[in-house]
Amino acid sequence: MNTGTTLVNGMATDSLSTLDRGLLYGDGLFETIAVHNRTPRRWSRHLARLQRGCARLGIAQPDAGLLETEAAALCRDAQRAVLKLIITRGTGGRGYRPDPAAAPTRILQLHPYPSWPADCALTGVRTRLCELRMGYNPALAGIKHLNRLEQVLARAEWDDPAVSEGLLQDQHGYLIEGTMSNVFLVRDNTLLTPGLTRCGVAGVTRGLILELAQQAGIETSVRNIAIGELTGMDEVFLCNSLIGIWPVNAIGDRQYPVGKLTQQLRAFLTDDMDKG
Amino acid sequence: MNTGTTLVNGMATDSLSTLDRGLLYGDGLFETIAVHNRTPRRWSRHLARLQRGCARLGIAQPDAGLLETEAAALCRDAQRAVLKLIITRGTGGRGYRPDPAAAPTRILQLHPYPSWPADCALTGVRTRLCELRMGYNPALAGIKHLNRLEQVLARAEWDDPAVSEGLLQDQHGYLIEGTMSNVFLVRDNTLLTPGLTRCGVAGVTRGLILELAQQAGIETSVRNIAIGELTGMDEVFLCNSLIGIWPVNAIGDRQYPVGKLTQQLRAFLTDDMDKG
Repeated sequence: MNTGTTLVNGMATDSLSTLDRGLLYGDGLFETIAVHNRTPRRWSRHLARLQRGCARLGIAQPDAGLLETEAAALCRDAQRAVLKLIITRGTGGRGYRPDPAAAPTRILQLHPYPSWPADCALTGVRTRLCELRMGYNPALAGIKHLNRLEQVLARAEWDDPAVSEGLLQDQHGYLIEGTMSNVFLVRDNTLLTPGLTRCGVAGVTRGLILELAQQAGIETSVRNIAIGELTGMDEVFLCNSLIGIWPVNAIGDRQYPVGKLTQQLRAFLTDDMDKG
Repeated sequence: MNTGTTLVNGMATDSLSTLDRGLLYGDGLFETIAVHNRTPRRWSRHLARLQRGCARLGIAQPDAGLLETEAAALCRDAQRAVLKLIITRGTGGRGYRPDPAAAPTRILQLHPYPSWPADCALTGVRTRLCELRMGYNPALAGIKHLNRLEQVLARAEWDDPAVSEGLLQDQHGYLIEGTMSNVFLVRDNTLLTPGLTRCGVAGVTRGLILELAQQAGIETSVRNIAIGELTGMDEVFLCNSLIGIWPVNAIGDRQYPVGKLTQQLRAFLTDDMDKG
C-alpha cells in the first residue's frame, strides 16, 4: 500500500502518531465498506453506525461532509475495493482518562477487494465452532470498536483454508456471530439471528437483511440462540458488507442445505446493492 | 514529546504505520515502567510479563537484549521518567487472521513522571466504585494487552480531582481492580487480593507485594472478593509500578484507616525499589 491510498486527517500519509489512543488503548471505531464502481456502498448506514459508536464511547462526532469528501477522493479510481474508515479519540499522553479537548483522528484506507471463490456465495462455505468464548460487555456490545483481540484469537484457532469462518459463542453457550460476519438461521420459515446486547458487532448488512426480510413479510426473531439449537436449523448463513450473504453448508461435521430463504434474501440484498 | 523520546523498531521516530495491528485491532501488549536515576526499575519482572503476554497471544517473542539496549539508550538522561514499552503483532493487511511471518513492532516511549500530591502515599486516596462491569475473558485475563476500552470508559465516569481511582467489579459483583491499579485488602491481618483468571491485569507490583508479604510471614489469599465484603475490611490499598502503594482512605462514602499492614508493605516495597 502506498500513501496514495491512505488519508490521515485529510493528509496523504500512511503514518500515525505513536501517541494515538487508537494504538495505545484501541480507543476508537472502524467501518469496512465495499467500494463498487468508485462508490462506497451503503455509506449512510456505515456512517450512522460509526456515529452511534462515537456517541457510545463519548468520542466527538466526525464531520460527516468531510468524511464523505475524503472517501470520494480516495475511491475516485476504484472500480472495486475496500474502504476502511477508522476514527480514534485522537492523541493523548499516558493515562486512560479521555481528554475532552482532544481532536479525533480520522483514517481512511483503500484496500484491494478480497478474492473469494465464486461458489462461496452459491454452494456455501464450511465453518467451525471456535473454542474461544466471547466476554460480556454491554457497554461495548454492538459497536465496531478497535478492541478486537477476541476476533484475532478466534481466527488464529484454525488455518485449514477449506474452513471459511469460525462461529463464536458466549460464555453461556449462546451463539453470537462469526469472527468477521454476522450469522442468521432459518427454522420453520422464521429468520433468526442472535441478539447483540451483551457482546458482538451489529453489522450493517445484518441490519439491512432484517429490514429486507420484514419488508418481504418474512417472520424474524432476534433472540438468544443456544448452540444446541443449531442441530434443528433448516438453513444457516453468514453476512457482512463484503461477502454479502454466504450460505453455510457445514458447521463442523454437521451439514446444512443451501436453503430457499437464504437464496431469496441473497437476491434481495443484491438488488438493494444495485440501488447503491 | 519529540522524536528523541520514542523509538519504533530502533529508529528515532514517533510515527507508526496505519497498517499496524496494534492500531487496527489492539493486537499487542504494553508495559509501564518507572525510571529512576536512568534505570528502568523491575525490568526483569516487566520483561517476564511481556513475554508471558506474547506467548498467550501467539506473538513472536521480542529480542530481550535489544529491548534492554534500546531502553537503556532512551533512559540515559532520565533522572525520573516513565518508560512505556509496546509490542504489537506488526503490520498486516485487512483481516483478523494473524500472519505468522509478520515481524512484531516494538515501540519504546519516554514520558514525564506524573506528579501526585505527596500525601497520596501517606494519608491515602479517595476512590469510587465504577458503574462499568468488566467482561469475562479467560483468554485475555491477567495480561496487559492493548484492548483497554473498559478502562477508558471506566475512567471517563468521573472528573472530580478529589477522587484518585475507580474500582471495578465484574458482572457478578466481584471486585477486580482499579482502572490503573491493582487492589489489596486486609482483614484480620490477612492480605487479600482478587484472583485475575477471568478478567483484569496481573500487575508486576501486585506480584511483588504478594512475594514480599509471603517472605515476611504475612498470610495471603488470592480469591473472589464480593463487593459486599468491602464493608468488613480493615485496610484497603492500591498499587502499580508508578504509585507503588497508595492507601485507600475512602471508597465512596465508606472510610478506611491507613493501616499497619499497608504501611509495613509500603516500607518493604520502597526498600525493594532501592535494590533496583
